[in-house]
Amino acid sequence: MLKPRPISGFPEWTPAQKLAEQYLLDTARYVYELYGYTPVETAAIERVEVLAAKGVVDKEIYTLGRLRQEAAAEQDWEYALHFDLTVPLARYVAQNYGSLHFPFKRYQIQKVWRGERPQEGRFREFYQADIDVLAENELPLHFDAEMPAVIAEVFSRLGLEFKIRVNHRQVLLGAYTALGVEGKDQELALREVDKLDKVGRAKVAEALAGLGLATGVIDKCLDLAQIQGRAPQVVKAIEELGLAEPRLQQGLEELCFVDAELAHLPQDSLVIDLGIVRGLDYYTGTIYETILPRHPELGSVCSGGRYEDLTGQFINRKLPGVGISIGVSRLVSHLFSSGTWDPQRHCPTEVLVILPSEEARGDCGTVAQRLRRAGIATEVFPKPINLKKQVRYADRKGIPRVLFPHKFKPEEDTVEVKTLATGEQVTVSLAQWLEQQSLAGAPPKIY
Amino acid sequence: MLKPRPISGFPEWTPAQKLAEQYLLDTARYVYELYGYTPVETAAIERVEVLAAKGVVDKEIYTLGRLRQEAAAEQDWEYALHFDLTVPLARYVAQNYGSLHFPFKRYQIQKVWRGERPQEGRFREFYQADIDVLAENELPLHFDAEMPAVIAEVFSRLGLEFKIRVNHRQVLLGAYTALGVEGKDQELALREVDKLDKVGRAKVAEALAGLGLATGVIDKCLDLAQIQGRAPQVVKAIEELGLAEPRLQQGLEELCFVDAELAHLPQDSLVIDLGIVRGLDYYTGTIYETILPRHPELGSVCSGGRYEDLTGQFINRKLPGVGISIGVSRLVSHLFSSGTWDPQRHCPTEVLVILPSEEARGDCGTVAQRLRRAGIATEVFPKPINLKKQVRYADRKGIPRVLFPHKFKPEEDTVEVKTLATGEQVTVSLAQWLEQQSLAGAPPKIY
Repeated sequence: MLKPRPISGFPEWTPAQKLAEQYLLDTARYVYELYGYTPVETAAIERVEVLAAKGVVDKEIYTLGRLRQEAAAEQDWEYALHFDLTVPLARYVAQNYGSLHFPFKRYQIQKVWRGERPQEGRFREFYQADIDVLAENELPLHFDAEMPAVIAEVFSRLGLEFKIRVNHRQVLLGAYTALGVEGKDQELALREVDKLDKVGRAKVAEALAGLGLATGVIDKCLDLAQIQGRAPQVVKAIEELGLAEPRLQQGLEELCFVDAELAHLPQDSLVIDLGIVRGLDYYTGTIYETILPRHPELGSVCSGGRYEDLTGQFINRKLPGVGISIGVSRLVSHLFSSGTWDPQRHCPTEVLVILPSEEARGDCGTVAQRLRRAGIATEVFPKPINLKKQVRYADRKGIPRVLFPHKFKPEEDTVEVKTLATGEQVTVSLAQWLEQQSLAGAPPKIY
Repeated sequence: MLKPRPISGFPEWTPAQKLAEQYLLDTARYVYELYGYTPVETAAIERVEVLAAKGVVDKEIYTLGRLRQEAAAEQDWEYALHFDLTVPLARYVAQNYGSLHFPFKRYQIQKVWRGERPQEGRFREFYQADIDVLAENELPLHFDAEMPAVIAEVFSRLGLEFKIRVNHRQVLLGAYTALGVEGKDQELALREVDKLDKVGRAKVAEALAGLGLATGVIDKCLDLAQIQGRAPQVVKAIEELGLAEPRLQQGLEELCFVDAELAHLPQDSLVIDLGIVRGLDYYTGTIYETILPRHPELGSVCSGGRYEDLTGQFINRKLPGVGISIGVSRLVSHLFSSGTWDPQRHCPTEVLVILPSEEARGDCGTVAQRLRRAGIATEVFPKPINLKKQVRYADRKGIPRVLFPHKFKPEEDTVEVKTLATGEQVTVSLAQWLEQQSLAGAPPKIY
């Protein structure tokens, strides 16, 4: 006997939790499609040379082998599990360039794998739910504003309070140039400033001093990182710091444009925040992070940005893009562990048809098929045991309603329907009840 | 520059094909949920000892390694990608036994991986869409009849002609016992008989003779394998062969029960076929295969059966089950390559809002949001280029309708909607048009 054990870093949910995760994935997908994003799915596996094309060769990549190594083709070790959906997107777009229509708006909801150390409490297998738009030569700035609009709609539909923080790489780089921090020092300094939320101003100042920055410069770097608000306040605060530089100016105008385009979002759900950095080398313009104000410890649950040259390693075309990604597994895991989501439905079944006797099975099957044809997920209890036990089964599984067909006569079409949460019980013609359900509209699938 | 190339055996679809695959996956999931199956998702990775618990250690399993081998924990090589969803189900049920409610009806739609030789034209990464029911101690036979009912509904909704072939392991084993073929020879003989469709009667007879079977026995084995029909014909044909044995009798009764329960299915969609074998050691009762009569070369696209002891390696409980699995990737790949499905929609967008000028962008955005609130997937063309070019973009992407807001006046609410397939163009109040769409019901998402 082999006792099965969980594998650290590879989360699995109970059926109730999986229904809740599925609800989140479905909501993201629904909204993505509403905005015209089309599904793409890439293989879980990429050539190592593709994953490494950006120079990102590190210990986090899982490669493939074969159990019977003598049977393994040499090339197996050239394959590895993808660690995000962005590199695969770049490869896919380059590979299928001739058959894609630009601007190419795609969503991709898949698992990715990273060989993280389990003790860091990070997942080694997790879902990402990404959208990206790629255009030829030039990508209108309106798409930079579409990203927060889409994400806001996803989180609103999920009933989660959120705040999208927007910044611009050129504002940061331009400001550092204006401060005399140049070249490689810019990225090194930004990497330290990125820790501001976690370690505080004093520690970051110390680290910046270690890079050789003067005290006055350090203060301005830190003051800059603490600027946040809507566009007018941010413009004013930068002016007060006395910073001016062409790239800074250009980035700031783009930020103001995005801010204006998103005027319809609830005031608290969007903020320009010069403290976010997204230190990935491929971001070149607008950058995003999303926090849940009630769960600050979670950090960003949805991040992204604009990139001018994602596909440059694979194709000789200018294909600028902008994208954003929800880190689904970490988010739902936290919603479960914090008790924010405590799903009680263990199955999608909406109605359990009670089986009063073996003789009634034919009628029960007929009733169940009528419910299903009306789009109502239905189970028939499998054995004619004590009715209370059948109802208890529904109750324990979180099935909202039970239907007693024991008064069912085909000529009268009468059934009893009991709503378990309220105890309300009605005797009704099945045809009438089905019509009522249909008029009420499909219930939202919130488990 | 790194030219991206496909990886043999790891299929990827164009956006139009992916939409079609997604439609198939959604249809399966919708029907599975209608019958009360709940989603389960297991990690892509299992311990090798779990995958090998049934003794199935073969070259088909992909193990994990690390790119930087010095950083790899020893245990990485103990993990491998799952090769089906059945072993993971057994492990999941044993691991979560205490928190599951039985009968446990679950569906699982995930990718699996097998290290097949690419030259065989088989996929090394593919989707399976499974349902299984597991019960404690005893599983009512009605679930054996539910499998074909569910699968019939999936294929009917997909508009694919299908035929479900049902057999019973005990009928085969009992009949072979009655013929004096005993012990290990039963499986060896069945393995040869399983090739009947492919290689023909003469070749199989030769192989059976090689196993030492007498000519009269061989003839009866082959006659048995060629029996097919609904229950009465099959019972009669077995009687005519003069075969009688307790297990054969029991199996036959169960087959007749399943056949009777499925009387509501179209006559041609179900057949008892004593020629199917499903030589996997864990099937013990009813077995299923599904063929598409218009695509006989495809073989079975959906197979399964009943098993008495799937979880025996992991838990000391009696948990009989029955399940069935659609081989999604092979099926859709064939539908594409045979031209049966030739998807022309490249995105889920239902309406493209034309952008007549930069000044109209605000109105266009407002119109788009109203469409989305009505559940209509909508894009706004990103740049105010020539209108014909905008319409051509919609046409090439397969977007069914374009909406011209250039006559839009907020007080009149007037828009023009053009249906590209027919050329029909209407000038209508947006509010009215949205109400019409809503009354017409959501269009089926067949891409």
